[in-house]
Amino acid sequence: MQVLESLESNVRSYSRSFPAIFSRARGSTMLTENGRSIIDFLSGAGALNYGHNNHAIKEAMIEYLSSDGVVHGLDLATPAKLAFLESFSSVILRSRGLQYRFQFTGPTGANAIEAALKLSRKVTGRHTIISFTNGYHGMSLGAIAASGNRFYRGAAGIPSSGVAFMPYDGYFGAAVDTADYLRKILMDESGGIDSPAAILVETVQGEGGINVASKAWLQSVQAIAHAVGALFVIDDIQMGCGRTGEFFSFEFASLFPDIVVMSKSLSGYGLPLSMLLIKEELDVWRPGEHTGTFRGNNLALVAANAAINAYWRSQAFSQSIERSGKLMRSRLQANASRHGNGFSVRGRGMALGFDCGTAELAKSISCKAFEKGLMLERCGPLDQVLKFLPALTIDAETLNRGLDIFEDTLAETMKHFKRAVN
Amino acid sequence: MQVLESLESNVRSYSRSFPAIFSRARGSTMLTENGRSIIDFLSGAGALNYGHNNHAIKEAMIEYLSSDGVVHGLDLATPAKLAFLESFSSVILRSRGLQYRFQFTGPTGANAIEAALKLSRKVTGRHTIISFTNGYHGMSLGAIAASGNRFYRGAAGIPSSGVAFMPYDGYFGAAVDTADYLRKILMDESGGIDSPAAILVETVQGEGGINVASKAWLQSVQAIAHAVGALFVIDDIQMGCGRTGEFFSFEFASLFPDIVVMSKSLSGYGLPLSMLLIKEELDVWRPGEHTGTFRGNNLALVAANAAINAYWRSQAFSQSIERSGKLMRSRLQANASRHGNGFSVRGRGMALGFDCGTAELAKSISCKAFEKGLMLERCGPLDQVLKFLPALTIDAETLNRGLDIFEDTLAETMKHFKRAVN
Amino acid sequence: MQVLESLESNVRSYSRSFPAIFSRARGSTMLTENGRSIIDFLSGAGALNYGHNNHAIKEAMIEYLSSDGVVHGLDLATPAKLAFLESFSSVILRSRGLQYRFQFTGPTGANAIEAALKLSRKVTGRHTIISFTNGYHGMSLGAIAASGNRFYRGAAGIPSSGVAFMPYDGYFGAAVDTADYLRKILMDESGGIDSPAAILVETVQGEGGINVASKAWLQSVQAIAHAVGALFVIDDIQMGCGRTGEFFSFEFASLFPDIVVMSKSLSGYGLPLSMLLIKEELDVWRPGEHTGTFRGNNLALVAANAAINAYWRSQAFSQSIERSGKLMRSRLQANASRHGNGFSVRGRGMALGFDCGTAELAKSISCKAFEKGLMLERCGPLDQVLKFLPALTIDAETLNRGLDIFEDTLAETMKHFKRAVN
Amino acid sequence: MQVLESLESNVRSYSRSFPAIFSRARGSTMLTENGRSIIDFLSGAGALNYGHNNHAIKEAMIEYLSSDGVVHGLDLATPAKLAFLESFSSVILRSRGLQYRFQFTGPTGANAIEAALKLSRKVTGRHTIISFTNGYHGMSLGAIAASGNRFYRGAAGIPSSGVAFMPYDGYFGAAVDTADYLRKILMDESGGIDSPAAILVETVQGEGGINVASKAWLQSVQAIAHAVGALFVIDDIQMGCGRTGEFFSFEFASLFPDIVVMSKSLSGYGLPLSMLLIKEELDVWRPGEHTGTFRGNNLALVAANAAINAYWRSQAFSQSIERSGKLMRSRLQANASRHGNGFSVRGRGMALGFDCGTAELAKSISCKAFEKGLMLERCGPLDQVLKFLPALTIDAETLNRGLDIFEDTLAETMKHFKRAVN
Repeated sequence: MQVLESLESNVRSYSRSFPAIFSRARGSTMLTENGRSIIDFLSGAGALNYGHNNHAIKEAMIEYLSSDGVVHGLDLATPAKLAFLESFSSVILRSRGLQYRFQFTGPTGANAIEAALKLSRKVTGRHTIISFTNGYHGMSLGAIAASGNRFYRGAAGIPSSGVAFMPYDGYFGAAVDTADYLRKILMDESGGIDSPAAILVETVQGEGGINVASKAWLQSVQAIAHAVGALFVIDDIQMGCGRTGEFFSFEFASLFPDIVVMSKSLSGYGLPLSMLLIKEELDVWRPGEHTGTFRGNNLALVAANAAINAYWRSQAFSQSIERSGKLMRSRLQANASRHGNGFSVRGRGMALGFDCGTAELAKSISCKAFEKGLMLERCGPLDQVLKFLPALTIDAETLNRGLDIFEDTLAETMKHFKRAVN
Repeated sequence: MQVLESLESNVRSYSRSFPAIFSRARGSTMLTENGRSIIDFLSGAGALNYGHNNHAIKEAMIEYLSSDGVVHGLDLATPAKLAFLESFSSVILRSRGLQYRFQFTGPTGANAIEAALKLSRKVTGRHTIISFTNGYHGMSLGAIAASGNRFYRGAAGIPSSGVAFMPYDGYFGAAVDTADYLRKILMDESGGIDSPAAILVETVQGEGGINVASKAWLQSVQAIAHAVGALFVIDDIQMGCGRTGEFFSFEFASLFPDIVVMSKSLSGYGLPLSMLLIKEELDVWRPGEHTGTFRGNNLALVAANAAINAYWRSQAFSQSIERSGKLMRSRLQANASRHGNGFSVRGRGMALGFDCGTAELAKSISCKAFEKGLMLERCGPLDQVLKFLPALTIDAETLNRGLDIFEDTLAETMKHFKRAVN
Repeated sequence: MQVLESLESNVRSYSRSFPAIFSRARGSTMLTENGRSIIDFLSGAGALNYGHNNHAIKEAMIEYLSSDGVVHGLDLATPAKLAFLESFSSVILRSRGLQYRFQFTGPTGANAIEAALKLSRKVTGRHTIISFTNGYHGMSLGAIAASGNRFYRGAAGIPSSGVAFMPYDGYFGAAVDTADYLRKILMDESGGIDSPAAILVETVQGEGGINVASKAWLQSVQAIAHAVGALFVIDDIQMGCGRTGEFFSFEFASLFPDIVVMSKSLSGYGLPLSMLLIKEELDVWRPGEHTGTFRGNNLALVAANAAINAYWRSQAFSQSIERSGKLMRSRLQANASRHGNGFSVRGRGMALGFDCGTAELAKSISCKAFEKGLMLERCGPLDQVLKFLPALTIDAETLNRGLDIFEDTLAETMKHFKRAVN
Repeated sequence: MQVLESLESNVRSYSRSFPAIFSRARGSTMLTENGRSIIDFLSGAGALNYGHNNHAIKEAMIEYLSSDGVVHGLDLATPAKLAFLESFSSVILRSRGLQYRFQFTGPTGANAIEAALKLSRKVTGRHTIISFTNGYHGMSLGAIAASGNRFYRGAAGIPSSGVAFMPYDGYFGAAVDTADYLRKILMDESGGIDSPAAILVETVQGEGGINVASKAWLQSVQAIAHAVGALFVIDDIQMGCGRTGEFFSFEFASLFPDIVVMSKSLSGYGLPLSMLLIKEELDVWRPGEHTGTFRGNNLALVAANAAINAYWRSQAFSQSIERSGKLMRSRLQANASRHGNGFSVRGRGMALGFDCGTAELAKSISCKAFEKGLMLERCGPLDQVLKFLPALTIDAETLNRGLDIFEDTLAETMKHFKRAVN
């Protein structure tokens, strides 16, 4: 660990929150070098929806490696890519009545967001992107400009441009429909917002604090986008691949986005892979106009294909996510009610937030939970929300065990906390 | 292949230049689905310096996968990361008298460039980055701003800012020292260039046309950077990891950059991995200020570690690169001389360019060579330069066979070409 | 007139709306070359608060010219400037309990706005300016960025940056307090708006459609600015110099802005003159850091001094503005009520707007009124508002005559309009 | 004077360099309140080419004021404007074989530059403006971006964008033709400079240090602009209106700019007035797209018309400028030669610079000269150049008297200076 401290940049973060050396992992359990076993409710910040080292997927990867299939192929055609394209098209898209072209971008979410913004600007000839309060889309210059957090924005070192922020669903409380605001300002010839190239939205804001947009609001936003000639772009990087119950997080609202941005759990095994789904008529790229060395991460495509085949050919997986989500929500809700203190629970599917009100309280709970064997990340504008993001494949026993640890930690913390207050 | 055409975005590029389905690969040879064998002088645009599916590395990867080592770990501490840090520090850095901190960024070159620019701006409180004519640094907004090519720049859809371009070494011919220009303009209180945060430079410009900077010029640029209070940043994404003979492309000039940007062949197997090497006193990041889901691609770290141990513990590998580079250069030079026509050869180590003068000629040669079994990419402002970038591990026989194909193709093309002219 | 059409740029505007050659003018009356007499309710877009060619002021100017007082003096010290500084300080500032330093900028409102934005950024080290929906601040790049109108914004030819727009008072109807929105978003660490350098506001938006901010709202905005460490900047270019009744338009709300931007009627005679009033502790300019050839328009300073002495040494002028304003408002209100049709009246003092709902109707009324001898400009996001901006010095008879013409024109237009509808 | 120090912003500059209260002025002489008489070689930074309070012009102004001609008229048609348009067209343009449309912008040079940049971007649909080292174009955001000086650029408070700087004629010494550099980089598809909207150039850089562009270089730049589809824009704000001998500073090179920017001495009397001359086919403005309150400064138009009629209907004025310019140059040159010390003399017509090498020396001379009765400004990147800009109407005796003072001051300073060195 001293090696890390002396050699790795100050910028390192998770190794501070969870100070251990993690040697092995499987499913929802991680093992540390000194023998501790940790239940993982962080899931690689959403990149491990199928758990660590999922064996169904691993098998396909090892076989591919062993056979000397092309691993790095830029964007050359490979059987691995073709297989993925066909599976995704038939299993995921066709069955949902969706039709898209695929663009493989550099394998990070930020790379994919950058490509989506560029394409939106190219298609429309406009420059402004509409993003939302508490939105998070990545760390490269174009993506930071669309991210709300001042801590990240400040690190860019130059003022960002080309993005205007609007209030997300519920930002002013339940009584105000912020879609009305969006419509009025975008329709206004003198509102200060240039006609937008795209409206970029998360259906549930992950980093922003597990803020949930309603079906009606999302439908309004889609309609507004079309009314003002902007592309409607869903960032499904963290909430896609089943996190909210269905494969895409926007299915519940019957949306048909112009561009969908996918990454994180797409590869199924935590390997870097990203892509855009683009409506065919918007695919105005000229060959090679957006490029990148790692667009053809074939090992990740093999894993992604395996994940689709293993989990998405039937409704069973969605149903199990729904069950686990309900279990989580009811237990979290019960804890919030029991302790009062302004605690609240938000989320959809298996993406749930437990809002502690203050960063101090959330941090204290996260630290103690880790000591007790549960890894729990924080999010939200003040890091005041505990983020429950277990693997979608977690079994009921482990899930309950994790929630038990949280429950105990919370109770202890509150006892300590109340004593401190009195 | 029709699947690809109907499902993949128009943006796809390599699958157009090299229209085949590549099923397997090893070392410098790729096999297509219909049984053709192709010699690869493209090497994943520099990401495959150790060849396709290098077996020494593969073994370590499969073992890691089999043992359920942590594959995706955000930036948690893992034995895989620690082992890489220690190998790289001792084998690569210490032996060269260098000392750096490591920042693992998102695993693409663009992610790493974005991080380097952000850090430079943060350290200095300035905003302007100096980049060079024909420079190429990536496709995200911050990286495009530092890239010279109008085709890529135009695709950003908004004007870029924060970067000023200066003439690269040799841009005005051998008689003019462009470092003098750089010095004068940066020292000038009224030259229109704000005091720079960083000077960002490639020692050999890959995408830009295999343009080579001299030792003296690079040393001048480093001295100018220090004189004006700017960070000196080397983009070693394509030219690092042995491509020019030594591990870092800047060793020959005895430079000590403030930041080094690494990616492409770093992982050794074509897996996405990027990092910055940062002088300790410049590591002013606050924890978590630059983040990213795929910073801890442990499988790639395992592969990277294996590559270092296999190739860089002795001088033998560098010596073999030098030998192969000389062979390539002498054969290319002979071909240029034989045909005249303004052909010229440029490069260092095993990064060589054969400048055809026109895109048409270069394209024609590249196409025919592919038909004959050789994959050869083009680069330069007009795509007029054939880029010779074989694996550093290529054996003499395969190398010569590839060069034979080029030689035949060139001869045929010139015969045809002269007939057409007459 | 043909000379104009063939020699002056297409950009010309008022000479299209009011197609006549205006040879002479005095007070509220303009004479055309062919003998027509026009009542002027436009007043040089607010630059002629004291009427055309005010004789009290004219006398001072001719005397100054005749005595060869310095007319152009850059920012050299002159008795004319010193006299103005002393009058303005004692008559305007001291009596209102205000204390400011004076910065004479280039003599247009846009020049002064640019200086105010630069100073705000310099003082705070921040870059973002908060402006409001329907705000208008000028035509240079920095000022356009802070102006809401897309027609003007689009003409910049490059995306603007450094400004975020917030809803003005009443933007969402009377029920919503938009200051609450402003507070929430500026206090939010993840709202997407970087900490602002300044909040720039008009107390009544002139070009934006005669939108009126309430006392409570303006006080909230001032408090928010201070709470977030931003400068509170009032653009009093059009609404200052008595237009709303008192010298400054913000007196009614007991504000003490950090910077006040003055221009238009400042010189009293329609000569170009602009200045900033700056709180002493914010005057961090280094000598010469913002410069300009026409900062010392001494003839305008002589006129400005004469205007102050003639009109602002007693309360009488303010009282007469109040009387005229009430008269205007009651007659306009009566007309709105009589015709219904959604007509509404807005404004403060002698800045009143008659909202026609559509541009067509407003244009038709403005055209016909001009034929009948009344000059009446349009404003608002759709040019749907008739702008009543007579000279503050207008006598009751002329004012009533002008309102008679409007009344007749409106009645005729509505008769015609209803016939067309039926 | 204490009033000034306590009430005027720190930003004031000329009142520091020339600390006196200037009460009256005529021709080339200014009188201070305490009775000193100063010869003015500063001429309002180029705004007083016809001297202070020129009586031929004054008469026309007083007559216009007395007759209640329209003084402020927005851009309404007035006989004063029409008379100016006709005089300028026939006397200035037609006789030189030029044909332009007139756009009256806000009355400062910066306003006019902003309009020129906007129009260039609008015409071409491009965003980049090419400006030159040491160029100076104004203080508003768009104009600063095109100005080279870091002191001014820094005061903007935000990074500027949309402008790329190229080396001015002679920037690398006499041996290097910087137009070749410009051509190469603009023709290069990978040089980092987007296709430009305009090339903006001064024929002699005033603020930049009296740097003179040659005929051949200017012709090359015009040809390059046309070759790359950019507008060729001459900023003739300081060097126009006869300063270099002919009315336009570019006549000697037989140029036909796409846009000419005029201000400063245009009104003849130091009153604010600016305009663009635009080739008819480039006048793509929509009505009202660029506006401004003080576009129709009719008093200034009356003065401008009088100046044209008084000075430009024959060749006599140009011939006298040439004579005076030769006299100045030969005396300055003699002084430079006499003292050696690296002194050099540059300029054209009556715009001459005496380069002292260091700011200290130049400042010392300027201060002492003022004590002896001569006002002499400094310019150049380090304020190291003394700027000789007497009124074009100066008589030989006053001119020689001013030069005598300079000569004495220089001699004394050098004596003192050499003593200090020894």
